Amino acid sequence: MDEFFKSGHYNLSPTVLFCATPPDDGNLSRYYKHNANFCYKLPDTLTFEEGALIEPLSVGIHACRRAGVTLGSSVLICGAGPIGLVSLLVAKAMGASQVVISDLSAERLAKAKELGADFLLPVKREDVPQEMARRVEGMLGGQPQISIECTGVESSIQTAIYATRSGGVVVLVGLGEEMTRAPLLNAAIREVDIRGVFRYCNTWPTAIAMLASKHINVKPLVTHRFMLEQAVEAFDTARQGLGIKVMLKCDKNDQKP
Amino acid sequence: MDEFFKSGHYNLSPTVLFCATPPDDGNLSRYYKHNANFCYKLPDTLTFEEGALIEPLSVGIHACRRAGVTLGSSVLICGAGPIGLVSLLVAKAMGASQVVISDLSAERLAKAKELGADFLLPVKREDVPQEMARRVEGMLGGQPQISIECTGVESSIQTAIYATRSGGVVVLVGLGEEMTRAPLLNAAIREVDIRGVFRYCNTWPTAIAMLASKHINVKPLVTHRFMLEQAVEAFDTARQGLGIKVMLKCDKNDQKP
Amino acid sequence: MDEFFKSGHYNLSPTVLFCATPPDDGNLSRYYKHNANFCYKLPDTLTFEEGALIEPLSVGIHACRRAGVTLGSSVLICGAGPIGLVSLLVAKAMGASQVVISDLSAERLAKAKELGADFLLPVKREDVPQEMARRVEGMLGGQPQISIECTGVESSIQTAIYATRSGGVVVLVGLGEEMTRAPLLNAAIREVDIRGVFRYCNTWPTAIAMLASKHINVKPLVTHRFMLEQAVEAFDTARQGLGIKVMLKCDKNDQKP
Amino acid sequence: MDEFFKSGHYNLSPTVLFCATPPDDGNLSRYYKHNANFCYKLPDTLTFEEGALIEPLSVGIHACRRAGVTLGSSVLICGAGPIGLVSLLVAKAMGASQVVISDLSAERLAKAKELGADFLLPVKREDVPQEMARRVEGMLGGQPQISIECTGVESSIQTAIYATRSGGVVVLVGLGEEMTRAPLLNAAIREVDIRGVFRYCNTWPTAIAMLASKHINVKPLVTHRFMLEQAVEAFDTARQGLGIKVMLKCDKNDQKP
Repeated sequence: MDEFFKSGHYNLSPTVLFCATPPDDGNLSRYYKHNANFCYKLPDTLTFEEGALIEPLSVGIHACRRAGVTLGSSVLICGAGPIGLVSLLVAKAMGASQVVISDLSAERLAKAKELGADFLLPVKREDVPQEMARRVEGMLGGQPQISIECTGVESSIQTAIYATRSGGVVVLVGLGEEMTRAPLLNAAIREVDIRGVFRYCNTWPTAIAMLASKHINVKPLVTHRFMLEQAVEAFDTARQGLGIKVMLKCDKNDQKP
Repeated sequence: MDEFFKSGHYNLSPTVLFCATPPDDGNLSRYYKHNANFCYKLPDTLTFEEGALIEPLSVGIHACRRAGVTLGSSVLICGAGPIGLVSLLVAKAMGASQVVISDLSAERLAKAKELGADFLLPVKREDVPQEMARRVEGMLGGQPQISIECTGVESSIQTAIYATRSGGVVVLVGLGEEMTRAPLLNAAIREVDIRGVFRYCNTWPTAIAMLASKHINVKPLVTHRFMLEQAVEAFDTARQGLGIKVMLKCDKNDQKP
Repeated sequence: MDEFFKSGHYNLSPTVLFCATPPDDGNLSRYYKHNANFCYKLPDTLTFEEGALIEPLSVGIHACRRAGVTLGSSVLICGAGPIGLVSLLVAKAMGASQVVISDLSAERLAKAKELGADFLLPVKREDVPQEMARRVEGMLGGQPQISIECTGVESSIQTAIYATRSGGVVVLVGLGEEMTRAPLLNAAIREVDIRGVFRYCNTWPTAIAMLASKHINVKPLVTHRFMLEQAVEAFDTARQGLGIKVMLKCDKNDQKP
Repeated sequence: MDEFFKSGHYNLSPTVLFCATPPDDGNLSRYYKHNANFCYKLPDTLTFEEGALIEPLSVGIHACRRAGVTLGSSVLICGAGPIGLVSLLVAKAMGASQVVISDLSAERLAKAKELGADFLLPVKREDVPQEMARRVEGMLGGQPQISIECTGVESSIQTAIYATRSGGVVVLVGLGEEMTRAPLLNAAIREVDIRGVFRYCNTWPTAIAMLASKHINVKPLVTHRFMLEQAVEAFDTARQGLGIKVMLKCDKNDQKP
């Protein structure tokens, strides 16, 4: 147990093992032995699907905590894929008053609207970051205090920095290239902090509490379901980028969402 | 402009003047001149009544900020009067997963239920603090991380301290006697912080954002309405402790809530 | 490993065992087996006595961290016993610009002066808290932002609250009676936070770094030394309140301080 | 007074005017009228030169505050010019146990040594950032928690990111190009925060307290002195990068440092 563990940041410890992060093979099996310290009992009122979605939801919780989302925050989320959407759900549950979310895909933006986004920002690959930042400001009637970047795309990182209010925070959740060209000078002199996330930390009890109290509803995230025996088909679906979350079911009698 | 102002805690400055705090006579008049630095434009979508309720709502915002309410917090609120109720509204909007609220009056508890309280704790004057603390723990399935004390009553302050989880926070909002007998040793060795509030600070923009986005609904707080000319009757109503908030209306054509 | 451990507050876990805290018998023995997660290698440049003093120093570190001592802080320390003195050493090392320390004993105050206290405040049992608070303000030319209460005496806790600047912090380190009569209203409306400590958490690496870099010198704290075989005599000395720290030595060839 | 002012971040307000920041002509004159809210009385024990050095010292204070330097911090400072040196002085005063400082110039490193640097890291323009990061780790026996980048040079920013421990902070003080190529992915997945500074905020009382209490000694920073009438010569000296701080003196009878 190193200093990262003892100070409450076990996710940063070089010794931590995240299930399914190489070289770990993951738990795609009927039985799996997990460290009891990190097992939580699912309340009877939660379905297994909700339980399975605690993992992605945790990414949103950790990102919004790192961002400092709180009552009345206005937030830009770049990217309406699964991570952008869970960040949206969590930001609203933490009291964000306005969330604008951007994406290339109109379909994804429609899903974001359904999940509570206040403003949709369709983007195109050739959009100019500073111009996008101005559009965000126009939509919100002011710059957002927080931007949560979920694409990892360089131009989107640039947009997030330009868009954020002085004294605000950009959280980098999307993973991009090793090196990024970014307006660090602009961020620095406006004291816009740039913070990353490595997975999550201490999120399970919070996620369970939010799901059990019905404050957050993750069920609409599941768009496809397959039996464990159809795992290859499930992975193909995910690989093609269809839908949001593809769920593998272990019990053919448990088909409730 | 002293160091309190310059460091963002203008509410603590000895030079700050809160309207209607003696020796200030308040603004119960048709025209009132106020420092422009502290005037905010009400969006067209908000009613004047919502605008008038920003002041009490601000107390709840400041209390919940000082408490550190966040996603998944479990919270005990002592007292279901106006301040307890606005604290409830704000705690839920900041992501509290469970709120238990206590009061002597069944009527007030019913109002709290209507406004979103998860658990109601009827109390009697003779209740023993440590016993009440155990009841709170039983209701929530664990001690709350946060207690917001809105009564100022000594036994309730004691309950709040005993009830709160180690490492948690008790916020003192209710004003009681000059000296209080309290289990400070119990608080100290469990690192339960005791924090007070003096009115509020930097809450108007947040309150307006939350009301405009419909995340917080303060309208049910108004139980009585009087024209400005009926001010004496209105004060009598408030003095008798009837209802929650008594509203004075300046324009006889504006009777919408 | 419960949530206290996982969130970095292992000192608050009900499962934590502090050596020598009943029912633990302590490690007054030649050989002692300790949890490897909480063993730290002492650098060659540190003496065993310095190593032994990391435990009391840790109390000072934890208290000053909880207090938020930082560059330019002005600090009142109530009590110049061992805990008051280590708090003094740590407060100065964290950048406190002015420290006033109080005690009944002129001898202890003289020791505090030697260790770097800027102002000495002799107190008598019959002193009136609000009057003492005014004397502190007079000495410092303003109220201290932070008070660290190391006596547990009710009147001293009261002094600490009255003395502290609005928006400041009182840390309760001394252990007193179960119930305390205190001006919580005064603290609350001036937003003076009251925080306790339970031993310490994550202090060893910091303490070792500070001792190894010679930023903190704990050697003057040792006033008496006995061989392990003279343990009873050593305890008698400590019980009589003689000196500051009484050291038991295991190796008769190691008599260097 | 906008929200930046009211929340204690007046340095970020678009309305703030920093003296001598274009379009302001500065105060190079015998008489100068300044906003009384931002005037502080210099204690009699401080010299005018110390008073003049509060401005650069403030940059170090603000940088170290933003970095979160505290007891036992290990710190890398990139650049041993005036800003690097004041950051060094402040970091030590805030309790940093180890500071390594880098520079191209052996002369500047010697000055840093004199001012308390624990390790000197001579750099060359062609040095590889990841290699430099390893050298820092080797010197300190571990990665620093904090890096304060005072050069604005791209390779130095890269070094600062690679060098900093997971969960740590890089503060960007030096001003470089508009766009920077930086390993943001490396920073993000190790949760190394990147924070900038815009001048300073609420630093004068702290700086005066530290100078008055002799905890920080800025006098060695002054290497050249000129009378006001020799201002052109003084500016030439500064422009050539000679020495550290060039002081203009208004009173020919005040030549004490």
